[in-house]
Amino acid sequence: MNKITSLFNIQYPIIQAGMIWCSGWKLAAAVSNAGGLGLIGSGSMNPEILTTHIRKCKDATSKPFGVNIPLMFPFADEFIRIVVDENVKIVFTSAGNPAKWTNYLKEKGIVVVHVVANAKSAKKCEEVGVDAIVAEGFEAGGHNGKEETTTMVLIPLVRKTVSIPLIAAGGIATGKGMLAAMTLGADGVQIGSRFVASVESSAHQNFKNKIIETKDGDTFLTLKRIGPVRLIKNKFFFETEQKQNEGASIEELSELLGRGRAKKGMFDGNSEDGELEIGQVAALFNEIEPAANIVREIVEEFEQAHKEISKPFFK
Amino acid sequence: MNKITSLFNIQYPIIQAGMIWCSGWKLAAAVSNAGGLGLIGSGSMNPEILTTHIRKCKDATSKPFGVNIPLMFPFADEFIRIVVDENVKIVFTSAGNPAKWTNYLKEKGIVVVHVVANAKSAKKCEEVGVDAIVAEGFEAGGHNGKEETTTMVLIPLVRKTVSIPLIAAGGIATGKGMLAAMTLGADGVQIGSRFVASVESSAHQNFKNKIIETKDGDTFLTLKRIGPVRLIKNKFFFETEQKQNEGASIEELSELLGRGRAKKGMFDGNSEDGELEIGQVAALFNEIEPAANIVREIVEEFEQAHKEISKPFFK
Repeated sequence: MNKITSLFNIQYPIIQAGMIWCSGWKLAAAVSNAGGLGLIGSGSMNPEILTTHIRKCKDATSKPFGVNIPLMFPFADEFIRIVVDENVKIVFTSAGNPAKWTNYLKEKGIVVVHVVANAKSAKKCEEVGVDAIVAEGFEAGGHNGKEETTTMVLIPLVRKTVSIPLIAAGGIATGKGMLAAMTLGADGVQIGSRFVASVESSAHQNFKNKIIETKDGDTFLTLKRIGPVRLIKNKFFFETEQKQNEGASIEELSELLGRGRAKKGMFDGNSEDGELEIGQVAALFNEIEPAANIVREIVEEFEQAHKEISKPFFK
Repeated sequence: MNKITSLFNIQYPIIQAGMIWCSGWKLAAAVSNAGGLGLIGSGSMNPEILTTHIRKCKDATSKPFGVNIPLMFPFADEFIRIVVDENVKIVFTSAGNPAKWTNYLKEKGIVVVHVVANAKSAKKCEEVGVDAIVAEGFEAGGHNGKEETTTMVLIPLVRKTVSIPLIAAGGIATGKGMLAAMTLGADGVQIGSRFVASVESSAHQNFKNKIIETKDGDTFLTLKRIGPVRLIKNKFFFETEQKQNEGASIEELSELLGRGRAKKGMFDGNSEDGELEIGQVAALFNEIEPAANIVREIVEEFEQAHKEISKPFFK
């Protein structure tokens, strides 16, 4: 048992990130059934769809699972009501002010985790009573902090800053990565990219295939003036880069991005004109696997690496 | 003993990075005397000054030390002749093609290490016979790779790609960071930022003071069109950012950068108009210390963390 396994009542401190277009009930239930914590990513859902996913997830697992709610999402307030009504026990909030809903959710008996990308936000989370923090580094896929602090620096920094349980995210897809993150001060890890490429992920097969082919340098943090996001370098990416280099306004960039680009790329499978959010760590794995295998491989590699590291290193 | 301590015949696999304007003979000798490997950074020297530094370093330590030579530096070829003539036993090359001088240096009995930022370059280093690689992540200070791959992802990726000894750089300043890097597959670490802020560093006191005040988000990778470099966000930084946002040409940016900016900031102590190269990890330490204390603290923290990590984590 550690702080994260006991907080969520799970077997391994491995959290599957709640992600748009990829992490519905199938993935969340598969990860929870495998001993980790599965999260339903609500950021691409509407209230009806979220309700359905929560109910199906409950049918598919008797283990704890959670819902990720991006607080700046138009449906966020309604989603808060839904998770309470549906008796969800764990909520990860992101992209917004943790002060807004933490007290309310905790009064309802819900464990609240908030995602941050800098030490100041971590401090604020602790002050408003959040139960645990996800600290996410620059290498992570999708939306990302403006500070661009990497996991290697962010985790020890947040660890120095707060004493509540800490979950490391960004650049982690393997047991060794997990052990490194815990060496830096994390109590657990949140893994996104590798689960996007799992069998149970609702990502389009084209997107999954693209992810496992990704090499170092194939993703990039772009659209910094709108809100930094890490994408695979495809035709859409290069179009946005060109617009930015030509000095496009925020309005022009927002128009190019549009509302449907992420769905087009990640859910509908248009790998050239769609937005493909994935982390740098995609360069480290090359297989589409069932989520349970992923959890098992991570745990086995973690335990093996832990055994090896316990031997003397030098001198 | 491990691969790095035996390759260099040193006590701890801790390498002090060769850095412009900061790492002369005083710092290199202090680190080598403390059991690490000190490097003279030749990239801000001329042939006469480099020769003097090598000779003074020999007088100041009987331990192994090395010289870092950026291969695209105008004096690079002359520096190669100098290290051979002066009987330097260890050379780190960077910023250029490792095929050019590796064979020649190895024939002279010199251990050759090359600095890379991606897996492809690491493979090339191995193919041309380099003895070890430094793989440097996005979080590192100063000049940096175009791929922006972070240490967390780069180290396991390079480890998968090559079998020669691997030194991790970028985001490492502490014993826990060192242990994490070695968990990811490194055999040793190269540390820059923390040694820039050491007593023996030739960085200006103003620069050292600025470094230890640095918080997360205070450095940024900029000048990507000329050659990415991580700097402290000062007046000079914001001027270059503004020029870039206005669509400045490479010529205009090069002119703004000029030749003397790094010296002005790091050596002459002009913290507003000078270029201040430092890594993200500066956010993690707050003291200017003798290099020997830094080495000792890192080793002690490493050993403590190693002891703690050897206990069971969960289940």
